[in-house]
Amino acid sequence: MAYSELLSLMHKISDLRAATAVLGWDQETYMPDGAVDARAEQIATLSTLIHGFNTNDEANRIVEDAQVYKSELPALQQRIIGRFIEDQKRSQKLSPQFIDELARVTSKGQDAWKKSRASSDFSIFQPHLESIVRLKQQEAELTSVGGNLYNALLDEYEPGLTVESLTPIFQQLKDGTTAILKSIDANKSMVSDEILYRHYDGDSQMKVAKQIIQTLGFDSNTGRIDLSTHPFCTSFSNTDVRLTTRVRENDLRSCLFGLIHEAGHGMYEQGVAAELDRTSGAGGASMGIHESQSLFWENTIARSEEFWEWAFPIVKNQFPSQLADVTPRDFYKAINKITPSLNRVESDELTYNLHIILRYEIENDLINGRLAVADIPAAWNDKMSQSLGVVPPNDAEGCLQDVHWSFGGIGYFPSYSLGKLFAAMQWNTMQVAIPNVKALVANGDFAPVLNWLRTNVHGVGRTETPTEISVRVCGKPLAAYDFLQYIGKKAEDVYG
Amino acid sequence: MAYSELLSLMHKISDLRAATAVLGWDQETYMPDGAVDARAEQIATLSTLIHGFNTNDEANRIVEDAQVYKSELPALQQRIIGRFIEDQKRSQKLSPQFIDELARVTSKGQDAWKKSRASSDFSIFQPHLESIVRLKQQEAELTSVGGNLYNALLDEYEPGLTVESLTPIFQQLKDGTTAILKSIDANKSMVSDEILYRHYDGDSQMKVAKQIIQTLGFDSNTGRIDLSTHPFCTSFSNTDVRLTTRVRENDLRSCLFGLIHEAGHGMYEQGVAAELDRTSGAGGASMGIHESQSLFWENTIARSEEFWEWAFPIVKNQFPSQLADVTPRDFYKAINKITPSLNRVESDELTYNLHIILRYEIENDLINGRLAVADIPAAWNDKMSQSLGVVPPNDAEGCLQDVHWSFGGIGYFPSYSLGKLFAAMQWNTMQVAIPNVKALVANGDFAPVLNWLRTNVHGVGRTETPTEISVRVCGKPLAAYDFLQYIGKKAEDVYG
Repeated sequence: MAYSELLSLMHKISDLRAATAVLGWDQETYMPDGAVDARAEQIATLSTLIHGFNTNDEANRIVEDAQVYKSELPALQQRIIGRFIEDQKRSQKLSPQFIDELARVTSKGQDAWKKSRASSDFSIFQPHLESIVRLKQQEAELTSVGGNLYNALLDEYEPGLTVESLTPIFQQLKDGTTAILKSIDANKSMVSDEILYRHYDGDSQMKVAKQIIQTLGFDSNTGRIDLSTHPFCTSFSNTDVRLTTRVRENDLRSCLFGLIHEAGHGMYEQGVAAELDRTSGAGGASMGIHESQSLFWENTIARSEEFWEWAFPIVKNQFPSQLADVTPRDFYKAINKITPSLNRVESDELTYNLHIILRYEIENDLINGRLAVADIPAAWNDKMSQSLGVVPPNDAEGCLQDVHWSFGGIGYFPSYSLGKLFAAMQWNTMQVAIPNVKALVANGDFAPVLNWLRTNVHGVGRTETPTEISVRVCGKPLAAYDFLQYIGKKAEDVYG
Repeated sequence: MAYSELLSLMHKISDLRAATAVLGWDQETYMPDGAVDARAEQIATLSTLIHGFNTNDEANRIVEDAQVYKSELPALQQRIIGRFIEDQKRSQKLSPQFIDELARVTSKGQDAWKKSRASSDFSIFQPHLESIVRLKQQEAELTSVGGNLYNALLDEYEPGLTVESLTPIFQQLKDGTTAILKSIDANKSMVSDEILYRHYDGDSQMKVAKQIIQTLGFDSNTGRIDLSTHPFCTSFSNTDVRLTTRVRENDLRSCLFGLIHEAGHGMYEQGVAAELDRTSGAGGASMGIHESQSLFWENTIARSEEFWEWAFPIVKNQFPSQLADVTPRDFYKAINKITPSLNRVESDELTYNLHIILRYEIENDLINGRLAVADIPAAWNDKMSQSLGVVPPNDAEGCLQDVHWSFGGIGYFPSYSLGKLFAAMQWNTMQVAIPNVKALVANGDFAPVLNWLRTNVHGVGRTETPTEISVRVCGKPLAAYDFLQYIGKKAEDVYG
């Protein structure tokens, strides 16, 4: 039977991907420093093998066969085959030489970016970024999906997303955000977040964060938590999901909200149907849907007032002296303080999107040749001034703050905002399906929330596109309205 | 150039092996319990790929080419090619189906062994071990090297080793051991090791053990230490060597000597010449040579009186109250107590070999069909009584104590004793080369010792056979004399 042949191929590729991911996780958590070069070779070898198995003659023959027998199979298998063929087609368009060059250029690029940021000297990174942009332009041409050249890069993270569809959504988001910012401007001194920056012991922060994500539903039997410089989530199967976090003793947000965010990614991976394991249907539907899950838990749930009815006593129990003078309401307001700032990662729920839109506009201009790499710092500062009203004092705090471009992740940023939009749409739908959901959250009973996500979003893995999921779950494609309504209400609640 | 083609193939295989080893390390250290099945599939996929790349038509053609151009290359490259061809020939003899069956049978076997040992019920493991023995007999026939059938299995761990050459060495070792045991029998109550079983805090044990192995020369920039149920050493390149240990708070030996032992393996791997990296010449020459390095550090060095001149103040500083009434001489005698016991791992330097010889005899009889699996318990107890004078009260403490048979490691045990013999020969040679070596050890200056090992043993990796190393370094092939002389002297010193 020919499908079993395709299944074997998918298993092989999936297991190699898992092994590569383990090598990556180990590199960020436990690998000794001296092993960097050896690890780079190991990852390159596995990546080359994966590309080969995806694109060699045998894969082509297996795909040709699948086109023939596909229609006789159940719908789920047809979906899995569809995803495999799409992945394969994309891989086919890039030669091993191109993959290899991109890997080498971005490997050096990441190193240069670190140095560039450390000394706040854009000129160190500039020639590397020029090579990266040139290669990503080539990639966009090779994998073109029609329309704007940048569409091909967006499509990699968000299947089906185009500049043509995204720009009006982002315009709405920008206008709405500006309107809300104006509406709270008079009251902006009303909220203080000083309490978050007292001294909080690291071990205690980890303890309380672990306790909270386990109650949310992150399963420790099929997952674990480690420390790393930059928090991330990676999975090697739906039974092996790894989260990392970092701890800052003078910032209560970093570990707790970081870990809730990563646990949101992790619970998504743990919730993908077991029958999709080791196939092209496993994993998240897109970066945007993935971010919708992490941001849903981090913001919609864990920055709600109801959540802190339940969670505040837990955190206060761990930090009785630091939080002695703090009420749950103070805490809720502190973690929802809105203020335009220089840093994307540390920005609030509302102004975060302005950081994303700025990057989106710059990427679009870069890929289409309307902006030279050398002119990024000026363009960045100009846009910061216009949209957020603040200007970075140097490039380290400006256009060098994010790692993404250095690893070739151009087209990635919009997913973060799409995640916010979908999280808000999902929340509106969930409140209809589970009318007492806020009371449940206030009571620390998250099982109905997680079960709803499992059933409606997680289970299907990659067998539906982001738009299919959005339409099936929320009855409409992605839009900015629900998010603006949600954040507008919260801004009103916090700022009066 | 054809050698570059072979080099690429070796790199590919080496990187896949390294990735497989990372998956194995992760499984024993950090992997969540729920991931067992997924990990087994990932490892099986990588193992199948490695076997394929070693034995497919392309590998055959590359090897054929190498046979032609080999003689024109420098000696080192010729050695590397030689090792690749030997590995390849052995792999060729086993079909993918055989490898797969062995993997499945031993995977289930390990699980059955755990249950069998936990309930001390041999009948649970028996049918699995019968399958394993049957498959290892087949493997021995398929990979036959001539002579006794068991030779093929010995050869896997110790290239060139045969029953015909090993039996007389083991007979000498047995006779010598029995003679020494008799000589100390009258004084056997003179040594107490009670001080080792006081309460020693786990974190402090780890701290002192880490400090000691770093002083010995284990490089933390290219290695690290974690906890696992059973201590082991694994390496993914000479720049990435992982040790594990375990801590028992009522036994000072377990963590400290365990970690020194594994660091001995680790320093060997760190010392293999960088130019051999990612080739068939990388790694240790054999299990026996590997054990000679670990046992050299654990016993020859770290159980010497000179070592404790340096180390005792360090350990006492960590445990001042527990060791308040103990002198370095007491400590030295306690860690060198000789007493026949039931357990291989916990036995002393001398009687340890009797445990190995017993297993060797049983394996030889099993593979040659002279002993049925069902009769192992009786044969075990009988031999224990004869050679050690003690009889296990149950099979858990008897023939079920070791994991090796359950993973198919028949032929492995002799390497431990060969390691002891080579460690003693190496020590005699080193004392000539570094006349003040004992004074250096007493002073905590281990760099000359490690450098000597690097130069004489580690550097060549697998490009020499165990016998070649033995003859080059010590001027003679492996024999029991040096060890018996070494251990006889120590017994006399400790027991008077």
